[in-house]
Amino acid sequence: MFEAKVASALVLKKIIDSIKDLVTEVNLDITSEGIGLQAMDSSHVALVSLMLHQKGFCDYNLEKPTTIGICITNLAKVMKLASNDDEITLGLADDPTHLKVTFVNRKQEKKTQFDLNLLTLDSEHLGIPDTNYTSEIMMNSFEFSKLIKELNTLCDTVTIETTIEYVRFSLESDVGIGNIQIQTSEPNEKKEDGAEDPKDDAPVVQSFALKYLNMFNKASCLSNSVKLMMAAETPLVVEFEIEDLGELKYYLAPKVNQDTSKD
Amino acid sequence: MFEAKVASALVLKKIIDSIKDLVTEVNLDITSEGIGLQAMDSSHVALVSLMLHQKGFCDYNLEKPTTIGICITNLAKVMKLASNDDEITLGLADDPTHLKVTFVNRKQEKKTQFDLNLLTLDSEHLGIPDTNYTSEIMMNSFEFSKLIKELNTLCDTVTIETTIEYVRFSLESDVGIGNIQIQTSEPNEKKEDGAEDPKDDAPVVQSFALKYLNMFNKASCLSNSVKLMMAAETPLVVEFEIEDLGELKYYLAPKVNQDTSKD
Amino acid sequence: MFEAKVASALVLKKIIDSIKDLVTEVNLDITSEGIGLQAMDSSHVALVSLMLHQKGFCDYNLEKPTTIGICITNLAKVMKLASNDDEITLGLADDPTHLKVTFVNRKQEKKTQFDLNLLTLDSEHLGIPDTNYTSEIMMNSFEFSKLIKELNTLCDTVTIETTIEYVRFSLESDVGIGNIQIQTSEPNEKKEDGAEDPKDDAPVVQSFALKYLNMFNKASCLSNSVKLMMAAETPLVVEFEIEDLGELKYYLAPKVNQDTSKD
Repeated sequence: MFEAKVASALVLKKIIDSIKDLVTEVNLDITSEGIGLQAMDSSHVALVSLMLHQKGFCDYNLEKPTTIGICITNLAKVMKLASNDDEITLGLADDPTHLKVTFVNRKQEKKTQFDLNLLTLDSEHLGIPDTNYTSEIMMNSFEFSKLIKELNTLCDTVTIETTIEYVRFSLESDVGIGNIQIQTSEPNEKKEDGAEDPKDDAPVVQSFALKYLNMFNKASCLSNSVKLMMAAETPLVVEFEIEDLGELKYYLAPKVNQDTSKD
Repeated sequence: MFEAKVASALVLKKIIDSIKDLVTEVNLDITSEGIGLQAMDSSHVALVSLMLHQKGFCDYNLEKPTTIGICITNLAKVMKLASNDDEITLGLADDPTHLKVTFVNRKQEKKTQFDLNLLTLDSEHLGIPDTNYTSEIMMNSFEFSKLIKELNTLCDTVTIETTIEYVRFSLESDVGIGNIQIQTSEPNEKKEDGAEDPKDDAPVVQSFALKYLNMFNKASCLSNSVKLMMAAETPLVVEFEIEDLGELKYYLAPKVNQDTSKD
Repeated sequence: MFEAKVASALVLKKIIDSIKDLVTEVNLDITSEGIGLQAMDSSHVALVSLMLHQKGFCDYNLEKPTTIGICITNLAKVMKLASNDDEITLGLADDPTHLKVTFVNRKQEKKTQFDLNLLTLDSEHLGIPDTNYTSEIMMNSFEFSKLIKELNTLCDTVTIETTIEYVRFSLESDVGIGNIQIQTSEPNEKKEDGAEDPKDDAPVVQSFALKYLNMFNKASCLSNSVKLMMAAETPLVVEFEIEDLGELKYYLAPKVNQDTSKD
């Protein structure tokens, strides 16, 4: 038996919309810590990782940890039945065949119940290795979203270079060559505690497919800021904090540089 | 000879937009009582019935009742030439070949005249039998519109159940099963006059094609509320009052239940 | 060497958007007077003529006049990288292979550089003969834009008739016949100086393809008013003033009247 309640439907709607272009069928891992999700897109280039912490829910009652398979596309359609400020309850029976989704509006005069059919999916849990990211950049999420969207009209690939002073997005195509350089407004916080800071090291330069970065953009409505984390030969992490509830991270494998791949 | 004037183009624009997805060529019946229209959609599942009362017009001069055939799609295009607060005059000569539509803006500096070609259409007048509806529900028209639109993304058919206390919209599809239950805010008014109320009877439960209900949605901009009327084995009526001018009703035949159709 | 600076990206974005549906590859003529552009659409029915005066730029440094070929579609994509209030600098090296476009935001923390590849285009300079237009009409550009857009849904051709008192747009199609007559709000200014006014002459009546007029509509965001200039057997001029910077003119050849073309 499982039941969890969220005070406002809007944030759940946004989370599901942020995922549904990338993955369609996913396993939700429901534990005493919260609701988690990890899934790769069909081309296995990008990975989405969501964690909604137990303490972010109004109520959270779980008998024993469970994993359920759902179709995100269908859940997104069901979520549209909710008004933005509806209270949402998610529920599972023992040996469940469906996810019980209930919306109740503030005035209590309207109640929506939907039993979303569950799927049986292969449970491939993806171990994401702990990585010491040598570069962490915070950006305004709206600005990041606009930038990626416009770059995506100009070419397929963007090269991201981060130093301690700036992040630079470069592109090269038939149209021409260009770059956008943004000064990182906040100095690195870890410096202040006197610890050695690996992020001061050499700049990180890697190239990524804009198509995927553009799919991550939908999450920019979840948070005012986005964190980009990079390290050499490691997937880029694009992380959005979901206020009081958890975090949504996207991982994107770098494009292999054609010159270095030859040697 | 006929001439009628409406103070503001906006309401006529909205009415025509509410009809044009359902029917394309229609007869307008122009009588001393007003302008009426009744037409079935091409699949003969839905019927639209419009009445604009003579007293709702600023001027209304009619020599003898007449029926004219018009193409609603074309009239909708002509109406777009009007600004929302233009004054509109509709006119017909004796033995007319066209409907004269005139828009004049408030400052009188712009005048649009259009002679819309008339059509000769079969005049099939549809007798709608007087029905004693056992269920009448008032809903917020915006909420009804949103609900139908979202349900339409989830499945083809909705089952509507009305009781004296609530209206429930149920659906069942590959995605799962669900229902939205709304408490009917206002108690039945007819009760108060002490008369026997047939609406207290058994609940009415019928199924309808969401595709058509979704086409009726366009009329939700005409009124803040919508009235749903049902009775067993009778088409659903979806009625929008047009303030000071008349009413727009849609009739939709219920889907035949596959079990009962076998016996 | 050439360098010119514009205080706000927004106006340049609007200008380029106003041109890009009509022409894709164009020559820019950069002289001491400013930046000019003249190009015909691919069907050679319409011509766009743009002049941005040197005095409208913040800085304008030019060593010697030059002509560069650019792809307007690509420039439009690059311009989207700019925020509306970014400062823009355009630059050319000697013997340039690309146009250097630089955007800097107000806070100076973000800088975008793009080297747009140049094209080698045939330089067909189009002599536009000085014409004594017998009719000049000023209209609200938003009203003109809406009118053309709606007429374009009703038919292919509009006949424009101007007299000293009004401008009339007439159309005739399967739908019917109609016209929109607008009183010219301002009396002819040239009259006041006592000079003979050729614009008092006989009305001018000519027909034009709505498809092109509708493409000119994008420029209505550049100015609150639009000037229409006509003379018998001469292309219509649709002119938008670009405040403090220059003017954008479209020329459209009249449709040949089928009756008169026979004799």
